[in-house]
Amino acid sequence: MMAYDLTLQAVLERALRLYSKKEIISRDFSGIFRYTYGDFYKRTLRLANVLQDLGITKGDRVGTLAWNNHRHLELYFAIPISGAVLHTLNLRLGPEQLVYIINHAEDKVIFVDKDLLPLLQSIRDQLPTVEQIIVMSDTLEIPPCGLANPLSYEALLAGARETFSYPDLSEWDPAAMCYTTATTGSPKGVVYTHRALVLHCLAACLPDCLNLHEADRVLPFVPMFHVNAWGIPFACTWLGATQVFPGARPQAEDICRLIEDHKVTLAAGVPTIWMATYPLWESGKYDPSSLREIVNGGSAASVSMIRNYREKLGVPILHAYGMTETTPVVLVSRPKSTMENLSLEEKYQLSAKQGLLVPGLEMKVVGEDGREIPWDGKTMGELLLRGPWIAKEYYKDPVRSQDSFTEGWLRTGDIVTVDSEGYVGIADRSKDLIKSGGEWISSLDLENTIMDHPAVLEAAVIAIPHPKWDERPLACVVLKQDYEGLVEAQDILDFLRGKAPKLWIPDQVEFIEAIPRTSVGKFYKAALRARFAEAASALQTSEAPLRAKA
Amino acid sequence: MMAYDLTLQAVLERALRLYSKKEIISRDFSGIFRYTYGDFYKRTLRLANVLQDLGITKGDRVGTLAWNNHRHLELYFAIPISGAVLHTLNLRLGPEQLVYIINHAEDKVIFVDKDLLPLLQSIRDQLPTVEQIIVMSDTLEIPPCGLANPLSYEALLAGARETFSYPDLSEWDPAAMCYTTATTGSPKGVVYTHRALVLHCLAACLPDCLNLHEADRVLPFVPMFHVNAWGIPFACTWLGATQVFPGARPQAEDICRLIEDHKVTLAAGVPTIWMATYPLWESGKYDPSSLREIVNGGSAASVSMIRNYREKLGVPILHAYGMTETTPVVLVSRPKSTMENLSLEEKYQLSAKQGLLVPGLEMKVVGEDGREIPWDGKTMGELLLRGPWIAKEYYKDPVRSQDSFTEGWLRTGDIVTVDSEGYVGIADRSKDLIKSGGEWISSLDLENTIMDHPAVLEAAVIAIPHPKWDERPLACVVLKQDYEGLVEAQDILDFLRGKAPKLWIPDQVEFIEAIPRTSVGKFYKAALRARFAEAASALQTSEAPLRAKA
Repeated sequence: MMAYDLTLQAVLERALRLYSKKEIISRDFSGIFRYTYGDFYKRTLRLANVLQDLGITKGDRVGTLAWNNHRHLELYFAIPISGAVLHTLNLRLGPEQLVYIINHAEDKVIFVDKDLLPLLQSIRDQLPTVEQIIVMSDTLEIPPCGLANPLSYEALLAGARETFSYPDLSEWDPAAMCYTTATTGSPKGVVYTHRALVLHCLAACLPDCLNLHEADRVLPFVPMFHVNAWGIPFACTWLGATQVFPGARPQAEDICRLIEDHKVTLAAGVPTIWMATYPLWESGKYDPSSLREIVNGGSAASVSMIRNYREKLGVPILHAYGMTETTPVVLVSRPKSTMENLSLEEKYQLSAKQGLLVPGLEMKVVGEDGREIPWDGKTMGELLLRGPWIAKEYYKDPVRSQDSFTEGWLRTGDIVTVDSEGYVGIADRSKDLIKSGGEWISSLDLENTIMDHPAVLEAAVIAIPHPKWDERPLACVVLKQDYEGLVEAQDILDFLRGKAPKLWIPDQVEFIEAIPRTSVGKFYKAALRARFAEAASALQTSEAPLRAKA
Repeated sequence: MMAYDLTLQAVLERALRLYSKKEIISRDFSGIFRYTYGDFYKRTLRLANVLQDLGITKGDRVGTLAWNNHRHLELYFAIPISGAVLHTLNLRLGPEQLVYIINHAEDKVIFVDKDLLPLLQSIRDQLPTVEQIIVMSDTLEIPPCGLANPLSYEALLAGARETFSYPDLSEWDPAAMCYTTATTGSPKGVVYTHRALVLHCLAACLPDCLNLHEADRVLPFVPMFHVNAWGIPFACTWLGATQVFPGARPQAEDICRLIEDHKVTLAAGVPTIWMATYPLWESGKYDPSSLREIVNGGSAASVSMIRNYREKLGVPILHAYGMTETTPVVLVSRPKSTMENLSLEEKYQLSAKQGLLVPGLEMKVVGEDGREIPWDGKTMGELLLRGPWIAKEYYKDPVRSQDSFTEGWLRTGDIVTVDSEGYVGIADRSKDLIKSGGEWISSLDLENTIMDHPAVLEAAVIAIPHPKWDERPLACVVLKQDYEGLVEAQDILDFLRGKAPKLWIPDQVEFIEAIPRTSVGKFYKAALRARFAEAASALQTSEAPLRAKA
């Protein structure tokens, strides 16, 4: 068989050859922008020439500080097909972390959306490797920004050639990179090869995975700066699916409007957004009926959310699991054909799991002794992964790589159970797991159970130190507006009785105004642990682990 | 990203891990045999140990002379996961060609279905490399066959260990091989790497391609000795789909019964079988309603067949195109979502094309001058392919490899048109193309048009030499039984008027009893050309190219 390299060049070419008349829709700064894959292709080749003229050569890192829009899609292809590395910058990082990742990656050029210029300007003088800044806007003008010689994206494209000779690439060449937002220490970089991105596309699009068709109209709410928006822009382009980009600072109303106006069939994002869009759809203000499915990832969707979406809106929520180190799709939760006899409630429970390993990867789940745990749906262990789209190391970070990559496996740091059918359920992040009296308590399971309470909007459970039990759970609960002041800690504890093992019932319930979140929307439990450190030390005098009525 | 090799080992492991309770159904010699993927896995590992005990080592070729059944599936995996090469022997080859391919591949061992023993016995003394013959049957007994020391498959398995240590394999290692049934000269061998088989699976299963789900129940009528049954056994095992094997000498009635009894959702084969099953379904004798789709390949299905299946049976026929050199899936014909407004008739015409290039491959279509032809749906050129599951050469055949593999492309020998949407339609094999008065006439297009005539069962059009026009078409027509003797040549010619360009109208129509076919069911036009050589020489005196009434 031919030694044919798997690269994004062929992905782009297919979009032009077969789908040049299909559309890309983008919520631009001044309104909705639409163009065809044919026009997208021409602009992408112009952009590749611009990169060449800017002195970008093979292996150079090119930063993007941008929202989900069509220009970002052009960068998604122009940079890798030129042999350079697309480095998507997380615009929600603090200035210090942003400086770190740009310098650590040694970005040579940064493309920035015009409204993010102040963020970049504030750190500009700390970025010695960055030679040029290109400002993206829907006009040729650059807003006053205090930067020396910024260039206009649209002006550069207007002046560029429309033909481009692809450089020879190996499938092992780096195409993109992304830094994980570690909650402690500096972010860690992951480099994606062309091969990994292409193979990930193929597996993620399979019928039993995302089931992506040319006929789909896909809205990635998941940011393009976050693990390549789960690979969706690459996959959609390859298959010729219509793409709908939500642009700058999209709010729940924007998402609902875009889905309704552009008949979106598949939307992808974290549960936060689906919690925010739900009341807009439930009230009938917007119509979600074009959606065949919502892909939920980043954090787990609760059973109640899955149930409400299905029963009240007629929209199935598909759970997918992955991480920056895994390109990202690893698990997808669809019931097997042999599970037809499950009750509706059992199906919701199944959908709330992270699901089955996608074809192409290998997993094992190991206990503290390093041995594989039984697949009984109860025993917990750490999920280890290997496969062609799993990272082998962190970029230029041998020390921390050693902790996460051992004997050819990625240690995900996720504590999971596996049931007899092979469905993986995340019990916890290993650092969030509560180790109490020799047993493991899953903070995530507790949170999901608490969130089933009709008065609860959100809940986060953290470990607090305990002299006798080592650690005990503390529940931080956010009530729905209508219930504020009407629900007491004891009500929550009573609700848990019978639904969670006795040992798991939290020692304490704290009502808070909101769960702090990381820049990618995950619960930021370190902040909660710091906040309740005092409560914890007070509790260290207590002896009674269980406060729920017996 | 990890340097993780794509091999069939991981494909097999996934079937065990996730789908051990799902079923494989096989029409065995003594009736229907059913077992689970879990049991299949155990037997496959036993078989891998048997191979090891037989002295098979990495790279050794192992022949299989077998029908589509569960033992053949076990061989499909046990041989490649051991590092050996699965050489599927075409049981419809003549003894001379069979001897050639076994000796050319230097098969070390041959596994043979018990009813095919006489075929093998007749050539046994011409196979010096073959050390051992293993007979496959549903009992431990071996029929009297005159072979020295044949071994029993079931006896060997019964005595083998159930655990097996996979050898380290590279994705570039050969996993399987198949010889094309060249109509002239000796067969040509194609070797499939693990990488090619795995990548082919991923692309072929995509929603816009075969759309293969775990929930599918798949019957491959296409023989397992023919290009890995189009990859279906590998793909189904990977995804955990139910497999239904039609066993030895399946007749149309067997296929209809299996589809009905086992609720088959997807069946795959050549048009000959769908022509034979149609009346059984149309008459109501069997129920095809479990079928969500039929995959047709090998030869083109006519528009009238596609129309009848859709309108009379409610079963869509999906056209797929490939060849031994391409693993094989290359083109699949599904309408794009933008084609909703096409009339039903236009959709049938589209379905009768070979379709769109699947993701992962590259194609170009070149004219006699070597330059790419316009995509206008009319201009003809030869289809050239490259990609990760396209052969780079014929096995140990440098001279003939030179003709077919040039500058990194496979020359398919198929003359095609491409329309503005990218749909490829096969006009002809380059050797069957009729070159008349400087223009190209597609024998295939003519055949399809003739087959639209209500009295015509089948038609083959061949070129006959002509002193003025170089070549002219001659149509060989098989009438449906009810019409025999009631239709004349002039009726056929009149029918063509207005449906085909004037220059294309055949000079002559011959009614014959059946179209001769090759061992894989394709029209064997060389035989027709020989048969009508006399007619051809007689015609060389004629001057009038057009005989249809003006």
